[in-house]
Amino acid sequence: MLKGLSRAGLGDIGSDERFIALAGEYGFQTVDIDAKGLIDRNGLEGARKLLADGGVAIGSIGLSVEWRQSEEKFRAGLAKLAEEAAAAASLGVRNCCTYVLPATDYKAAHFAVIATRRLRTCAQILGAYGIRLGLEFVGPHHLRTAWANPFLWSMDETLDWIAAIGEPNVGLLFDAYHWYTNGHSVADIEALTPDQLVHVHINDAPDVPVEEARDNGRLYPGEGVIDLAGFLKALNAIGYKGSVTQEILSAEAPSASPESLLARSKAGFDKVYAAADLA
Amino acid sequence: MLKGLSRAGLGDIGSDERFIALAGEYGFQTVDIDAKGLIDRNGLEGARKLLADGGVAIGSIGLSVEWRQSEEKFRAGLAKLAEEAAAAASLGVRNCCTYVLPATDYKAAHFAVIATRRLRTCAQILGAYGIRLGLEFVGPHHLRTAWANPFLWSMDETLDWIAAIGEPNVGLLFDAYHWYTNGHSVADIEALTPDQLVHVHINDAPDVPVEEARDNGRLYPGEGVIDLAGFLKALNAIGYKGSVTQEILSAEAPSASPESLLARSKAGFDKVYAAADLA
Amino acid sequence: MLKGLSRAGLGDIGSDERFIALAGEYGFQTVDIDAKGLIDRNGLEGARKLLADGGVAIGSIGLSVEWRQSEEKFRAGLAKLAEEAAAAASLGVRNCCTYVLPATDYKAAHFAVIATRRLRTCAQILGAYGIRLGLEFVGPHHLRTAWANPFLWSMDETLDWIAAIGEPNVGLLFDAYHWYTNGHSVADIEALTPDQLVHVHINDAPDVPVEEARDNGRLYPGEGVIDLAGFLKALNAIGYKGSVTQEILSAEAPSASPESLLARSKAGFDKVYAAADLA
Amino acid sequence: MLKGLSRAGLGDIGSDERFIALAGEYGFQTVDIDAKGLIDRNGLEGARKLLADGGVAIGSIGLSVEWRQSEEKFRAGLAKLAEEAAAAASLGVRNCCTYVLPATDYKAAHFAVIATRRLRTCAQILGAYGIRLGLEFVGPHHLRTAWANPFLWSMDETLDWIAAIGEPNVGLLFDAYHWYTNGHSVADIEALTPDQLVHVHINDAPDVPVEEARDNGRLYPGEGVIDLAGFLKALNAIGYKGSVTQEILSAEAPSASPESLLARSKAGFDKVYAAADLA
Repeated sequence: MLKGLSRAGLGDIGSDERFIALAGEYGFQTVDIDAKGLIDRNGLEGARKLLADGGVAIGSIGLSVEWRQSEEKFRAGLAKLAEEAAAAASLGVRNCCTYVLPATDYKAAHFAVIATRRLRTCAQILGAYGIRLGLEFVGPHHLRTAWANPFLWSMDETLDWIAAIGEPNVGLLFDAYHWYTNGHSVADIEALTPDQLVHVHINDAPDVPVEEARDNGRLYPGEGVIDLAGFLKALNAIGYKGSVTQEILSAEAPSASPESLLARSKAGFDKVYAAADLA
Repeated sequence: MLKGLSRAGLGDIGSDERFIALAGEYGFQTVDIDAKGLIDRNGLEGARKLLADGGVAIGSIGLSVEWRQSEEKFRAGLAKLAEEAAAAASLGVRNCCTYVLPATDYKAAHFAVIATRRLRTCAQILGAYGIRLGLEFVGPHHLRTAWANPFLWSMDETLDWIAAIGEPNVGLLFDAYHWYTNGHSVADIEALTPDQLVHVHINDAPDVPVEEARDNGRLYPGEGVIDLAGFLKALNAIGYKGSVTQEILSAEAPSASPESLLARSKAGFDKVYAAADLA
Repeated sequence: MLKGLSRAGLGDIGSDERFIALAGEYGFQTVDIDAKGLIDRNGLEGARKLLADGGVAIGSIGLSVEWRQSEEKFRAGLAKLAEEAAAAASLGVRNCCTYVLPATDYKAAHFAVIATRRLRTCAQILGAYGIRLGLEFVGPHHLRTAWANPFLWSMDETLDWIAAIGEPNVGLLFDAYHWYTNGHSVADIEALTPDQLVHVHINDAPDVPVEEARDNGRLYPGEGVIDLAGFLKALNAIGYKGSVTQEILSAEAPSASPESLLARSKAGFDKVYAAADLA
Repeated sequence: MLKGLSRAGLGDIGSDERFIALAGEYGFQTVDIDAKGLIDRNGLEGARKLLADGGVAIGSIGLSVEWRQSEEKFRAGLAKLAEEAAAAASLGVRNCCTYVLPATDYKAAHFAVIATRRLRTCAQILGAYGIRLGLEFVGPHHLRTAWANPFLWSMDETLDWIAAIGEPNVGLLFDAYHWYTNGHSVADIEALTPDQLVHVHINDAPDVPVEEARDNGRLYPGEGVIDLAGFLKALNAIGYKGSVTQEILSAEAPSASPESLLARSKAGFDKVYAAADLA
C-alpha cells in the first residue's frame, strides 16, 4: 500500500508543483492533484518529470462533473471529463473519485435513479481511458439530516449502488472516518476483494461519541480513536495495493507551516503503519 | 392498436382456456394470461391451437419474480422466469409487465438502487427470449402515503428509472388511470416514441376530485371522466401498435355474469375507440 | 417520413449555410450536416435561425470518432464527440451515424470485439445527450473482398452486432442500396420495429447483375432498378417517421449545377413517393 | 493460492463424492465438480457435509449453457444455468468457467458478436448469484486451424473480448498450458490485477517445439518444460488468492490407479510450489 497525501490537512502548501516536491521529500508516494492542470501548465513531459523528480505518482483525480444538480450542468461537464481522463491516463493515473452526501433535498428515489445513470455515464467515459471511478460514502451522523431526505451512507448501501450502476470500473473510495462513523468493523473490510476498492482515505477521529464526530472535525492519523492498525491490516490482508491517502477536513485551515504539517502527517503514518506491522 | 382484456373486470370468468374463447367471441384480440401455465396444461401445440381458435394473442405476461423483498426471494424466482420467458416466446409473446408501488417501507434510495439491479437482471433474462419488460407507474394519491417513504409514481420518474436500468428492452406499462391520476396530458403521450411503450391499460375514473380517485375504484372505459379519446388518439398518433388492455380494479368483484361484463367491456371499447376516430 | 438530403449527389453545393437554404427551397425537410460547425460559425441562435429560415432540420450528424484504427486515435476523439453531441442536441438532432465496411485487414473476430466496445462507448456518450447511433451495413459485393478478412455486411448480422453492443440507443442506418445489394426483401423491413431504424438513405442502382453494383455507382431515386416503392411503403407501414435521406455516391462528382441536381433529386423523390402512395 | 484438482488427469476416480474425499486425503483444497449434482444427490446439508468432511471447497463449476451453436440451444440452457448458479452459490462457489476454441466454422466476426451477447447473458445470470464467469483462451497451435476461420486465442484478445462483454463479473480462466503455447511471459501475468483472474489451471508441456505441443498432450506439473515457478510466483505477486487447479488432458486416459495419480499430482504441486517459494 502506498502512502499518499491530499491537500486537506497541509494548510497553504501552494502550487501542485510545490506539493509534489514536498510530498516526495517527506517520503510520500502519491498525491491527489488535478492531472490535466499539471499537464496544461508544464506540458506532458514536464508533468512526467515533476512527478519522477518528486518520486511520486498521482493517487486519484477528482470527478469534476456536476452529477448532483441539473441535467444541463451534468451534460456540460462530459467533454471536460474526457479531456481530464485522457490527461490522467497519460500520467498513468487509474483512479477518479467523488463523494456521496448522505442526504438530499431531492426526492430520494428519483435522485437515486438519475444519479445512477449519470455516474454510469461518467464511469463509461473514464473506463475508455482505463480509469476507475471511486464512490466515497460519507458517515458523519450530522450530515444525514443536513438535507431534507436520507440518501445512502453505509458501505453496504454504496456497494448496492455500485451494483446498480453496473460498470466494471466502479468501486469504493474507502475513508477511515466514514468507516468509523458508520460503525463498520474490521470484518467488513475483510469481506471485500481488492478490486472493490478504488482509493483509500486515512485520518482519525476525536474521542467523542461517534454520533457527534463532525465531518470537518478530523484528526491526523494516530492522534485519535479510530482503530487504524486494524483498518490497515485488513486492507493489506485482502490484497489492496493502492494508495492510502491522508485527508484531514477541519473547521479551520491549520495555521502551521506546510513543512510542520507534513512532518506531523509523516509521523502519523509511521505510527499507524508500525501499529499495523507494515513497513 | 389491439383491443385486449385482462381478467380484472370480468368477474369469475373461469379458466384461461374459457377466457381465451370468450375474449375472441366478444371481438377482443389479446388476453393477458400466464403463457407457461397454458402450455403446461395443453402442450405447446394445444396452447397454440386454443389461441388460434379464439383468434387472440397473449398481450403480456406478468413478472412473477419477487423483486420487492429479500434477495433470497428474488434469486429464487430467476430460473422460473427463464422458463416462463421461454414459454411465452414459444407463443409469440413479446411483453412482460410489473407494477411499481408509489411508496415503500424501505429506505427509498436504497430500495431504488437494489430494485434497479434486480429489474435489470429480469430484463436481461427476458431479453434473451426477445421479450420486453414494462414498468407500470401507479398514480392514485392515497397510495403515495400508504407506506412510509415516497418512491416513484409519475411517467417522467419512471422513464428516468428505465434509463437507470439501462437495458434496451425496458419500457412503460402505460395505464390510463395512472396517466389521469398523475395529471399527465395528451402532450405527455405525444412526446413518447412507441418503443417506450411496452403495454397499455385502459379503464376510467369516477367523477370525484382526482386526488380522491382510489386505485380500486376504476370504471369501465367510457363510463367515467378520463379523456380516453385523447389518450387513444395520442397513442395512435405516435405509432403505438400494441395492445390496449382493459384492467378494472374494484373494491368488490363484479357480480354480473362474465358474458354481461364482456358485453359491457366491448361497448366501452367501441365507444371510446369511436370517440378517438379509430376503427 | 421526412425527405432529406446529404451532400452526396449535389455536386459543389458550397457552404452548409447555402446547402440549408437550397434544400429548403427545393422542398426538402432535413439535411445531414455538421451541427457543431454550424454553431461554431453562426452561434447557437444563428444556427437555429438558419435552419428555421430554410424550413429544415438536421437529419443526422456523422460519427467523427475513429473507431476502426488504433486505441490512441479512438480515445483522442471522445472529448470531441461529447462536444459534437452537445451541439447537435442543442439543435434538436437525435441521430448520429457511421458505416461498417464489410471486410477488414484486422483479424475479424478480434476487430469485432474491439469495435463492439468502442461503438458502445460512442453510443453511451451520445446517449447522454439523447442522441442515437446508427450503424450502416454496406452491401456491394466487391467491397467484401476489398480487405483481407470478411466482416459484417447484412441487416441480420448488423442487428446481431447491435444486440452485442447492447445499448438502448443503437440502431440501423438503413440504406436502400445496401438493402438491395444484400438481396434483402420487403418482408425483411416489415419485420423491423421503427426504433431499430435510426436513419434511412435512399438512392438507386443501375440495371446490372446485383453482384456487380459498385458502391460508387449509385443513381438518383427512381432512375434505377431498386423497388423503392416497396422500400418506402414498408418503412411507412412499420411506423418509421424519420428522414429518408438521399445519398448518391458516384465515381466522379456530378458536373451539373447544384440547382439542376436538386431539381433532379426532387423529381426522383416525387416519383418514388408517388409510387409508394405517400405524399 | 489454493491447490485444486479437476478430474482430468486422475483416471477413473469414480463419483464426485469419492473425488471429494480423495482430494482432501491428498492435501488438495478445491475440486472442480458439478455443484447442483452434488446437492441433487445428497441434499444441501449433505453436500455441505461432504465438502466439510473432505476439507475441500468447489473451485469452479463448468458453464453448461451451449453458447456456440443455435439460438434455440442457447436459450434452452438458461433456466438450468439459473438453477446451477443457485446451487453453486448455496455451497459458496464463486466461479463458473468455459473455454474458447481458437477457430470456428462460423463466419468469425458474426460468431464473435453473437457469442458476445450470449456470454453476457450467462454472466448476468451468474452475477445475480454472486458468481463470476471465467473464459479460458486456448493456445495450442494445431487447434487454430482445426476449424475454418481463426477466432481468439491469446490473453490480450480474450481481455479485449471481456471488455466487449462488459460485465463486472467476467474474467480469465488462466491455464498454464495456454499461457505457454501462446508464448506469453511472466511480465504478462504481472500486468494483470487479481480480479481479472477467475480461475487458474496448472499442467505442464513436453519438450517439443511449442508449435507442436498438442492440446491433449499435457503433463503433470513439474514433469515438463513450462516455467511453472515463474507462473506461480507472478500469480502470487499480483495477489491472486483463488484456486490453482490441475487439468491434464491426454490422448488416452491414464491407466494407473486414482491413488497413484493423486500421489503423482501431489508430488508435482509440491515440486512447483517449492520452486516458486510458496508453501
